[in-house]
Amino acid sequence: MSVASRLSIALIHYPVLDKNQDLVATAVTNLDIHDIARSARTFGVGRYYIVTPVQEQRALVEKIRQHWLEGWGSTYNPKRKMALELVQSENSLADALNDMESRTGRKAKIVVTGAAGRPNSVSFGAMREIMEQAPDQHYLLLLGTGWGLTEEIFAKGDYVLEPISGGGDYNHLSVRSAAAIMLDRLFGR
Amino acid sequence: MSVASRLSIALIHYPVLDKNQDLVATAVTNLDIHDIARSARTFGVGRYYIVTPVQEQRALVEKIRQHWLEGWGSTYNPKRKMALELVQSENSLADALNDMESRTGRKAKIVVTGAAGRPNSVSFGAMREIMEQAPDQHYLLLLGTGWGLTEEIFAKGDYVLEPISGGGDYNHLSVRSAAAIMLDRLFGR
Repeated sequence: MSVASRLSIALIHYPVLDKNQDLVATAVTNLDIHDIARSARTFGVGRYYIVTPVQEQRALVEKIRQHWLEGWGSTYNPKRKMALELVQSENSLADALNDMESRTGRKAKIVVTGAAGRPNSVSFGAMREIMEQAPDQHYLLLLGTGWGLTEEIFAKGDYVLEPISGGGDYNHLSVRSAAAIMLDRLFGR
Repeated sequence: MSVASRLSIALIHYPVLDKNQDLVATAVTNLDIHDIARSARTFGVGRYYIVTPVQEQRALVEKIRQHWLEGWGSTYNPKRKMALELVQSENSLADALNDMESRTGRKAKIVVTGAAGRPNSVSFGAMREIMEQAPDQHYLLLLGTGWGLTEEIFAKGDYVLEPISGGGDYNHLSVRSAAAIMLDRLFGR
């Protein structure tokens, strides 16, 4: 079993912060589903969970997924089908963790990400080593939407990944770009 | 002058290929502008050209740019303004190259990218070294939309960058994700 396949991704739409640091639920966007699913498939990630408590939004995820898995999209672009197969909508982080536990037989460790550094941040290289040294362990990488994950979520993390630096002090990547870079730093050649 | 600032990006909407390998002009999308501008700013890239011969599409780019540079968006999100400042629409690859020459005083070298390997591909590490060893040289990195850049464009390239591999045989990243990973491999820490 590859190292990457023992990592799954959860894109969190609630609880996240808005611009004013208030707690909100963000909207699911079509391109977040596609871009991150394609990156996940490229690097061999296990599952890609779209987490939102809004039932209509989960229904939207399922509609998009069905279009590419079984609808017209499945024959138009089979490569997209391979990516969207990884996608699964869940009501909450707890539900995503429960799904992983039922698939793998054990609790996943939580890896939190954000644009700000933390005293307990681990580097991408160190995280990769941690994963290699625990060959039975599974991991759930949390990506925030909006203005990022809440402190409550950070407190739940087993690990916090270092922020992506481009050398300067501007660190406002889109979540789609950040996810791509993170997976490349962890699993790319 | 940093290495990254001597590289500019051109997102090419024509000439590119469609699914059937036919020559087409693709549509400019809002998220391609934002995501790649944010990645470009994060890694300290020079300019980000949006290349399309369709006048209405260039007008759309300018409208989006003005919204974030001078309109309501400039006060709502100054970080986005910093990214969009890098954006410039051009009619053709030749026009983008001319603009670079007028800014830098010399012809830029062309770096072509694509999802398929080429016999003359250079690795990201080698490209970085090439750039470091020519401190007066500027470079234009070409990114294709649709199903990728044409052979005519590949033939114009001074360098062809190796495709991004995730370890498996699936290489269908979005152009936004691919751009982020490329800049990180060239300039990230």
